[in-house]
Amino acid sequence: MSLVVQKYGGSSVASAEKIKNVAARIKRRADAGDRVVAVVSAMGDTTDDLIALAKQITDHPEAREMDVLLSTGETQSSALMVMALHAMGVDAISLSGAQAGMRTDSVHRSARILAIEPTRLREELERGRVVIVAGFQGLTEDLDIATIGRGGSDTTAVAYAAALNARCEIYTDVEGVYTADPRIVPEARKLKDISYDEMLELASKGAKVMAPRAVEIGSVYNIEILVAHSTKDAPGTLIHGGADMEGFNRVRGIAHDRDVAKITLRHVPDRPGVAAEIFQPLADAHLSIDTIVQNASEDNLTDLTFTLARDDLARALPHVNEIAKRIGAKEVVADERMGKVSIVGTGIQSAPGYAARMFRTLSDAGINIEIISTSEIRITCIVPEDRVADAVRALHTAFELEKEAL
Amino acid sequence: MSLVVQKYGGSSVASAEKIKNVAARIKRRADAGDRVVAVVSAMGDTTDDLIALAKQITDHPEAREMDVLLSTGETQSSALMVMALHAMGVDAISLSGAQAGMRTDSVHRSARILAIEPTRLREELERGRVVIVAGFQGLTEDLDIATIGRGGSDTTAVAYAAALNARCEIYTDVEGVYTADPRIVPEARKLKDISYDEMLELASKGAKVMAPRAVEIGSVYNIEILVAHSTKDAPGTLIHGGADMEGFNRVRGIAHDRDVAKITLRHVPDRPGVAAEIFQPLADAHLSIDTIVQNASEDNLTDLTFTLARDDLARALPHVNEIAKRIGAKEVVADERMGKVSIVGTGIQSAPGYAARMFRTLSDAGINIEIISTSEIRITCIVPEDRVADAVRALHTAFELEKEAL
Repeated sequence: MSLVVQKYGGSSVASAEKIKNVAARIKRRADAGDRVVAVVSAMGDTTDDLIALAKQITDHPEAREMDVLLSTGETQSSALMVMALHAMGVDAISLSGAQAGMRTDSVHRSARILAIEPTRLREELERGRVVIVAGFQGLTEDLDIATIGRGGSDTTAVAYAAALNARCEIYTDVEGVYTADPRIVPEARKLKDISYDEMLELASKGAKVMAPRAVEIGSVYNIEILVAHSTKDAPGTLIHGGADMEGFNRVRGIAHDRDVAKITLRHVPDRPGVAAEIFQPLADAHLSIDTIVQNASEDNLTDLTFTLARDDLARALPHVNEIAKRIGAKEVVADERMGKVSIVGTGIQSAPGYAARMFRTLSDAGINIEIISTSEIRITCIVPEDRVADAVRALHTAFELEKEAL
Repeated sequence: MSLVVQKYGGSSVASAEKIKNVAARIKRRADAGDRVVAVVSAMGDTTDDLIALAKQITDHPEAREMDVLLSTGETQSSALMVMALHAMGVDAISLSGAQAGMRTDSVHRSARILAIEPTRLREELERGRVVIVAGFQGLTEDLDIATIGRGGSDTTAVAYAAALNARCEIYTDVEGVYTADPRIVPEARKLKDISYDEMLELASKGAKVMAPRAVEIGSVYNIEILVAHSTKDAPGTLIHGGADMEGFNRVRGIAHDRDVAKITLRHVPDRPGVAAEIFQPLADAHLSIDTIVQNASEDNLTDLTFTLARDDLARALPHVNEIAKRIGAKEVVADERMGKVSIVGTGIQSAPGYAARMFRTLSDAGINIEIISTSEIRITCIVPEDRVADAVRALHTAFELEKEAL
């Protein structure tokens, strides 16, 4: 008998029929003797519908109230899932984030998890019940509801798994982690396993399979995470901290992201502390900045470029304009039609040849590289949005990812 | 400066536009210096939609999970209302039933209110905020959500008004309490005021303006309740415990209800305690029984007839059949197509002539009376459902309710 925390995303619970299918899966697992906690997302488009409803009321809904509103989506799914389980004779109970013990800070809409206090969760499991937890939500010190932002349900599941020292299984609408998005590269191959770090780079750079925060928590608490399809019985991809079974020192996957915006501050006075003057106010505004590059200084003036999610551009620009004025930059140039493509694999940055092959492949395909950034296990190029798919295909072929590792 | 608890029903908050209209009303009140708590229902058909969704999952959703599911409707409205108020520059906050301090028992779907602990509610008011409370929901001792059943939002509003010693205003889609349903009797007249007892009889006997439980709480705590239209500025009807300004001893209104089912237990052995043997199990099953009549006994066998809401008939029949077998009744006869019509007015039952005039009026209209029941201030006749409208019209004319009292 083992304890497992499963997560079912919005597309897996998008209708009554789909909820019943998931309930049947949970029942099989419970019948096999496992103790099951399942974290559920809001049904299908519920969250988007609620956001649209709020927009009809006001262009600037307050974050605390958005949390109250949006958390109802997961709450509904959790109750419906329990009803489906009851109808199949499974003893089950739904718990809200508050009831399940998720404590968060008070940064509404993107709260950080402070702790999991799973007293009631454990009690219900000890009663022999399957526990369905509403994902994405927790309780602040003021006893208000807070949601934990993007990828909240994945993160919820891994956090509860860590608190309960359980195995974690993320069920989604893809069969696992692929060498590239199969919609772009039909010959993309599913990976049997991948390390936390590689997954983190793939997830951060656009592979939508799993939220980076969830991988981070898995890495910190060393929780193995299986990513698999919510209806098919195909084996998924195991994310773990152990040795990479398919071999180090090669490219594991190509990640991409089409929703990138680029902001350049031109002619920034190059003095100590100027970067902090730029990025602290953006952090204070809870704007998540991705790649940052600064060109070599000339006449003590430098150009500083960074990327962020396209959705955040409109919110970021007033801040950036104000910052530019304050620090005496010449102008702010924004381009919202960018994308990025990354190759990811442990060891590739230190090994010679990978970067060069990447740049040559893109050049041969006539794709202009606007920005380059690297980490230990990743090389990323910012390219025009309309060339992203071409770039992914060219790189997948160049690094022979359709072939199994030896 | 006074403290007011308002209630806005589902049709008043059925769309973003309507929510903004209500917010504007609340703002006017706050601008005038009043401290405002507003209890909101779920938007339009939300509750029915959620019930339909649950029915797609199972025919017998568990009550606890239905409460989790249904409570989200009011929660959504409360957050949206606060967003609308913020957009108008009004400082406001939404509170769930749990946050606002409503404590209930654990009878899910029809919980009783045990207490209101309005600590946070008072704190938020003292901060100068308008407080929007999600109606219909409270928190059990086990920290689970429970809903308080039919008329829950009216009852919520009056209960919070009682706890805060505030005035209560119920805003709805009618202009107040009428002498009869204006859809049936076009010349029906709006009453300026009405006593708790009269309102209770009208409400219990089918006037859908306000939930009887809410009136009861108003009566017990002596909270004046204004019933008025949620968008028009017409004066409403004041429900109070004081002297009846339009005069005692006359018919104040005609109530009706089309959704009545009748169950008759035939040839019940007439012995002490038999009524308890019949009605205790029905009470235990949380079935709400309305009128009960027992015919005179003959050969120690009696016929016992009672009415209940038509929706409850299917749930009641298995219980009643089992009871009939146990007590040795000959048979159970059910008729689900009944209705009822009542005349209500303080003093009419003790004054001669009202009952006789009612029966004669119905007889002249060719309407068969199946059951008669009376209270101190009401006379009710159970009639076939398809004659209810005719009965209301005939009685409204017979008692000259279109005329103002002298």
